[in-house]
Amino acid sequence: MQSPTVSELLSQNTSLLEVEIKGWVRTFRANRFIALNDGSTINNIQCVVDFENFDEALLKRVTTGAAIHVKGELVESQGKGQKVEIQVKHLEVLGDSDPETYPIQPKKHSFEFLRENAHLRTRTNTFSAVMRLRSSLSFAIHKYFNENGFYYMHAPIITGSDAEGAGEMFKVSSLDNKNLPLTEDGKVDYTKDFFGKETNLTVSGQLEAETYAMSLGKVYTFGPTFRAENSNTSRHLAEFWMIEPEVAFMDLAGNMDLAEDFMKSVITHVLEHNREDLEFLEKRLLDEEKVKPQAERSDMSLIEKLNFVTENNFKRVSYTEAIDILRNSKPNKKKKFKYLVEEWGMDLQSEHERFLVEKHFKCPVILFDYPADIKAFYMRLNDDGKTVRAMDILFPGIGEIVGGAQREERLDILKQRMAAIDIPEEDLWWYMDLRKYGTAVHSGFGLGFERLVMFATGMGNIRDVIPFPRTPQNAEF
Amino acid sequence: MQSPTVSELLSQNTSLLEVEIKGWVRTFRANRFIALNDGSTINNIQCVVDFENFDEALLKRVTTGAAIHVKGELVESQGKGQKVEIQVKHLEVLGDSDPETYPIQPKKHSFEFLRENAHLRTRTNTFSAVMRLRSSLSFAIHKYFNENGFYYMHAPIITGSDAEGAGEMFKVSSLDNKNLPLTEDGKVDYTKDFFGKETNLTVSGQLEAETYAMSLGKVYTFGPTFRAENSNTSRHLAEFWMIEPEVAFMDLAGNMDLAEDFMKSVITHVLEHNREDLEFLEKRLLDEEKVKPQAERSDMSLIEKLNFVTENNFKRVSYTEAIDILRNSKPNKKKKFKYLVEEWGMDLQSEHERFLVEKHFKCPVILFDYPADIKAFYMRLNDDGKTVRAMDILFPGIGEIVGGAQREERLDILKQRMAAIDIPEEDLWWYMDLRKYGTAVHSGFGLGFERLVMFATGMGNIRDVIPFPRTPQNAEF
Repeated sequence: MQSPTVSELLSQNTSLLEVEIKGWVRTFRANRFIALNDGSTINNIQCVVDFENFDEALLKRVTTGAAIHVKGELVESQGKGQKVEIQVKHLEVLGDSDPETYPIQPKKHSFEFLRENAHLRTRTNTFSAVMRLRSSLSFAIHKYFNENGFYYMHAPIITGSDAEGAGEMFKVSSLDNKNLPLTEDGKVDYTKDFFGKETNLTVSGQLEAETYAMSLGKVYTFGPTFRAENSNTSRHLAEFWMIEPEVAFMDLAGNMDLAEDFMKSVITHVLEHNREDLEFLEKRLLDEEKVKPQAERSDMSLIEKLNFVTENNFKRVSYTEAIDILRNSKPNKKKKFKYLVEEWGMDLQSEHERFLVEKHFKCPVILFDYPADIKAFYMRLNDDGKTVRAMDILFPGIGEIVGGAQREERLDILKQRMAAIDIPEEDLWWYMDLRKYGTAVHSGFGLGFERLVMFATGMGNIRDVIPFPRTPQNAEF
Repeated sequence: MQSPTVSELLSQNTSLLEVEIKGWVRTFRANRFIALNDGSTINNIQCVVDFENFDEALLKRVTTGAAIHVKGELVESQGKGQKVEIQVKHLEVLGDSDPETYPIQPKKHSFEFLRENAHLRTRTNTFSAVMRLRSSLSFAIHKYFNENGFYYMHAPIITGSDAEGAGEMFKVSSLDNKNLPLTEDGKVDYTKDFFGKETNLTVSGQLEAETYAMSLGKVYTFGPTFRAENSNTSRHLAEFWMIEPEVAFMDLAGNMDLAEDFMKSVITHVLEHNREDLEFLEKRLLDEEKVKPQAERSDMSLIEKLNFVTENNFKRVSYTEAIDILRNSKPNKKKKFKYLVEEWGMDLQSEHERFLVEKHFKCPVILFDYPADIKAFYMRLNDDGKTVRAMDILFPGIGEIVGGAQREERLDILKQRMAAIDIPEEDLWWYMDLRKYGTAVHSGFGLGFERLVMFATGMGNIRDVIPFPRTPQNAEF
């Protein structure tokens, strides 16, 4: 039988219960108070040791990071900060942790240092809270789609199709680089490779998800996607997870309804299920920002930001209206924007998106009907011939978090748009088939999962919201 | 507003309701009866057209695969096979489907043909049922772990660690193959590659999951894994999804309890939620097997096999006992086994596993304590020095479906086992850290998701249970 978890014990009201528990020592204070954690909650359970009754050599082994097994009585705590504690009767050290070498000491470590110890960093409060939230958000996503009649679809990771143009791709091969097979004219002979042709890691599952939407109706993907871009920033990963719902017979308005309802639902889920972790992370963020100049601090606390999303209607504004607002805005006229807003057709920057959300509308914003030239070929062209039925959802502090569109369902227009950017029709024969046979209006969107985790945890660097981040020059573990 | 789905309409009892629906035509019979499907269920809704009231040219466009929009009255059906049907008042063709070229005609297509049209094959009953079941199984897995206090962990896909030795790996690179950077001694200079070293696609997330178990307690992965093995069989994919739970402070007995409870739970979920799809697939399998000789048919129907798992206790038998049973079995003595069972230490074949489950014990079987030599280095060595605390779960029809173990938690023994197969310690410094700092008993198992989908759907080829299969010479779509 498994022992109860710390989380279960802490929610016990009954005192004087014989209990046992296994976990890792966070701190051992005054040779008497062990703070024990097992990952089930941000909180530790206090184990009180009557040191007179225990072997001194044993107590010396109760160090930060050691795994221990405790038996005793669960009693009401005399001290502050916890309702119950364990009066230890039996103590066993399962695994020692040498305090001279153990990297995770009970002090503040830099996030850089913890990234180098990503295999141990969930032994800290911050990273255990972040990863519990990541897990809870994942489940909320699956739950939402399941309850709303969507089917989960695993889009392929290795792909022979590189037509989406969303970014630089990683090559996948099983050829021996030291002895590449060559064709007669000296090129690499990919017919000898595993798949008989050049293959890459996917940048998006959307096109494949469309094939499933056009038969199963409502589907979504939730899987890893990749970009081989040399972006060494706090917002980019080479490997990240993406959620991409796709729905047949749904237009852009329905897409906005879906995205708003979905985002509110998953954030409500963590507000309801992860309160303690959120409160810890909220406090962490406040502490972090205390040392910053006023201008760089958040206007809202972490939980206020989450409520801002769940409690407000998302304002729907066309790109053209947004450009007008931004052009005439105070920061634009006073040249406070780094990128000044002048011409219709420009791509918006995070500073513009945040201005719209945080200063102008004071609610989450959905921009729609973007210029065709700055959006992807598969987005449905409007009758004006220059805008497409795209939408981006903008959140406080972070700017764009969701990007979606109604898809171009008309074969002739799709072909024109593919031709304009030189995508050969034979590369996307199957995608065109969807427009040849029973085509219909359909729409979907993409959400970068790590952007959502950053938003929900208040973490500032994307490397700190995924277990083992992959970035230029780094694929450790 | 979105129209209701076919599934919702079919469960309506009220008749004489004004309804509208969008979907794809499966068949159009006698210029009167449209069988309409939208992916929400295996069943079609019958739309009855009074052809005298409709334009002949419009009705000509109602062909298999066409997307249509129907408005009318939901009435009790006069015909057999359905309770309700739609008396069509308004009919619009949203997207035509040329019957001369549309590949998915209302007739039996071979699975080979449908694999070549994987972007359209979910427009058939069989593949829509399979993919709905795949989605339902996925959700059941997340639900089980969420309800039991596990955290979902995304193990890295691109990995710099190739120490697990589970199989051939795909290389991931962003180097230009036509112009590889070389070191002074003529080798490929991977320090110039994206990650600054050689990287591969993961074969398992287990080792990384262990790092999370040793801090968060109970975790699981559910993600894609890869093998670059040239196995062109009905049981192998180059890209497949794997589920790997890992639990701290859990021994092999707890691992068996967990795996049995888990497998029963997810199969019960589909028995409860996917009855119509299962009944369709059960019938499909019976039809398929009718033409086979008696000896090749299944002893149990599809749903009987699922009940066999949920209703029986899994028999726990040591490898050594199993070898004894097999050695003395009738098929072994009569030399009916392809691989005769003679010596302790041999790896079991599917025929042996199936004999134990289907003929000898007549229930699912968990074999444990395997010879160390045929199992992985990270499995905990027993005191006999020759077996490890491994376990495999065997199912009817399929043999091994789950493989797991208690992990070697003792640093000195782990080092010896790594040395014995030449894994350099510096490659797994982080894995060894788990044994250096707060080590404890822990266990976990792996389930190949597609093996589970095959078992639950009765499909015989693994390429037919994943949306876009990746196999040697094939990465289409």
